[in-house]
Amino acid sequence: MIETITLSVDAMGGDNAPRAVIHGADLLLKEHNNARFIFHGRQEQIDPLLNEFPALKSASSVRHCETVIAMDEKPSQALRKGRGTSSMWMTIQAVKDGEASVAVSGGNTGALMAMATFCLRPMEGIARPGIAAIWPTLRKDIVVLDMGATIGADAQQLVDYAILGSALARCLFDDESPTVGLLNVGTEEVKGLESIKEAGRILSDASGSGFTYHGFVEGDDIGKGTVDVVVTEGFVGNIALKTAEGTARQVGSYLRTALKSNLMSRIGALFATSALNALRKRMDPRTVNGGVFMGLNGIVIKSHGGTDEVGYKSALNLAYGMARSNLVAKIDETMKRFPIKAAPVAADAESEAKPA
Amino acid sequence: MIETITLSVDAMGGDNAPRAVIHGADLLLKEHNNARFIFHGRQEQIDPLLNEFPALKSASSVRHCETVIAMDEKPSQALRKGRGTSSMWMTIQAVKDGEASVAVSGGNTGALMAMATFCLRPMEGIARPGIAAIWPTLRKDIVVLDMGATIGADAQQLVDYAILGSALARCLFDDESPTVGLLNVGTEEVKGLESIKEAGRILSDASGSGFTYHGFVEGDDIGKGTVDVVVTEGFVGNIALKTAEGTARQVGSYLRTALKSNLMSRIGALFATSALNALRKRMDPRTVNGGVFMGLNGIVIKSHGGTDEVGYKSALNLAYGMARSNLVAKIDETMKRFPIKAAPVAADAESEAKPA
Repeated sequence: MIETITLSVDAMGGDNAPRAVIHGADLLLKEHNNARFIFHGRQEQIDPLLNEFPALKSASSVRHCETVIAMDEKPSQALRKGRGTSSMWMTIQAVKDGEASVAVSGGNTGALMAMATFCLRPMEGIARPGIAAIWPTLRKDIVVLDMGATIGADAQQLVDYAILGSALARCLFDDESPTVGLLNVGTEEVKGLESIKEAGRILSDASGSGFTYHGFVEGDDIGKGTVDVVVTEGFVGNIALKTAEGTARQVGSYLRTALKSNLMSRIGALFATSALNALRKRMDPRTVNGGVFMGLNGIVIKSHGGTDEVGYKSALNLAYGMARSNLVAKIDETMKRFPIKAAPVAADAESEAKPA
Repeated sequence: MIETITLSVDAMGGDNAPRAVIHGADLLLKEHNNARFIFHGRQEQIDPLLNEFPALKSASSVRHCETVIAMDEKPSQALRKGRGTSSMWMTIQAVKDGEASVAVSGGNTGALMAMATFCLRPMEGIARPGIAAIWPTLRKDIVVLDMGATIGADAQQLVDYAILGSALARCLFDDESPTVGLLNVGTEEVKGLESIKEAGRILSDASGSGFTYHGFVEGDDIGKGTVDVVVTEGFVGNIALKTAEGTARQVGSYLRTALKSNLMSRIGALFATSALNALRKRMDPRTVNGGVFMGLNGIVIKSHGGTDEVGYKSALNLAYGMARSNLVAKIDETMKRFPIKAAPVAADAESEAKPA
């Protein structure tokens, strides 16, 4: 008997919900027939859609929730209104209750993070959650975090992100000791902030316990794929991610303009159609959809709200992979192997945190 | 009689110096025959090169400096060793002495910034200098600063960058009221740092005095060209710039791979050669070479150290444009129009840093 993997899904989150969500789940099921779904949301909207996908229907259950969190609702508002009742909250609650391994929602990020933190609570030893992105690079996909769950991070929080990120990398890339780099600026003497230097010292001492510490990396090392895990504070991570997205779109637009610029280039583009389609697919943001909320007692995946069924399928696929590789257990294990985390954290000296 | 524009040039700065520097100057002279150059560096290396470019030779003077700052020298070391003697220092000194309008060096950034700050001193009313980048976007070139001259910035420093950046935009783009945006993250309630919010309030009140305040922008607004001037703290600016460079290289590499993937795509690439060359030129980092050090009593341009004559020509061209449009006067004018700056600035060391 094949073990089933159950995902808890907010059917109402995102601009194209619930249709794109349900359709995306059907695409995942076609690839992984041991996937099971608990959909949360308005039954009267979900049921007719499930009737369109009979295979999915028999792999799903629906939990009716009247309340839906709007995309522009403030986190505090959403929490007041939707705690214990909304499709977003109930999606997370199912993970807390052990009914599903991972929760997925395309709803608004701030509200989802607030609810996830409130419902699941931070893991012991982790002060604040982070959002990890899977970032395609020239070498392979890598993990970058934090993407903006928390603004500002002290050395200890950066170390937490390194632990969380390397646990995620171990799950995704099947590598027992992924390399970790701290994002920094490379201007000689003034090598960045004190918190980053301090985190570098701690990680350097702990290197080998579930990850290999590489050192500082710069902005262009992300695209090169210099390390498996890039750790940074949330403000910087968010700006880096969006700047990269903007640049990719910009270059794509240059390319389209160039290939339409004259008759010869149009003919050239015709000949190269299959290659250009492959390139387009490679740069399709829908195929790497999903921010992973980490550091809580349970995994929540945030899908882009504006995506379609292909994008949802990617987010659900990410959730599926994490459930199957048991991400939470891997994080736990990494924490236990990490020397600093084993001992009570001291404010001053790293030496006493080192095992004898 | 045509007015001449004199640039002070560190002939020894950068990996391919002095050849690439001299050759680059010759390329600029071919375009602007009223350009004049003061080269600083080792006469025995510069003279033979100038003999290869007779037109340039007659438009140039050479100032011998024995000391050359190495690319890996620490700023403090460089300052001790090279103050008053090195080619880098003397390049800046010529601007201070009014012999040239703008200084250009491809030498190491940290040393150049230390020397520029020490020699030229911050402008009255500006606490710390910033580095501005000219950033190509889908709409047009824009100004982004700070690129890492200073790590961390309070609200007042961000406002200073807005003033400096809009003065630069007025020079470069011939627009009397460029739009200014503050780089921020867009997660609803937690809209970024207190310093950014405060800067937003100040800029909003001052909008109309030499610039138009647009509001917050996100990382992907840079590539879109949403505003003419993007203002951010130096750490974030440096990471954003390098991440964008990395992404552009990554996409370029994907494209090359795709076009070589099969016979049809190779044929297609052949047909589209001219369009692809135009694209390559558009994405050539050498054509937008030059970080502008701003907020000092004089303008210094940092060229990439690893570039060739084409790159140096771009940096020199940027310097030429700034000298011709009288950037320093434009900054001064913007400062005077800015309401906050008209009032005495809070009690710190800015006034005494000005030479009498």
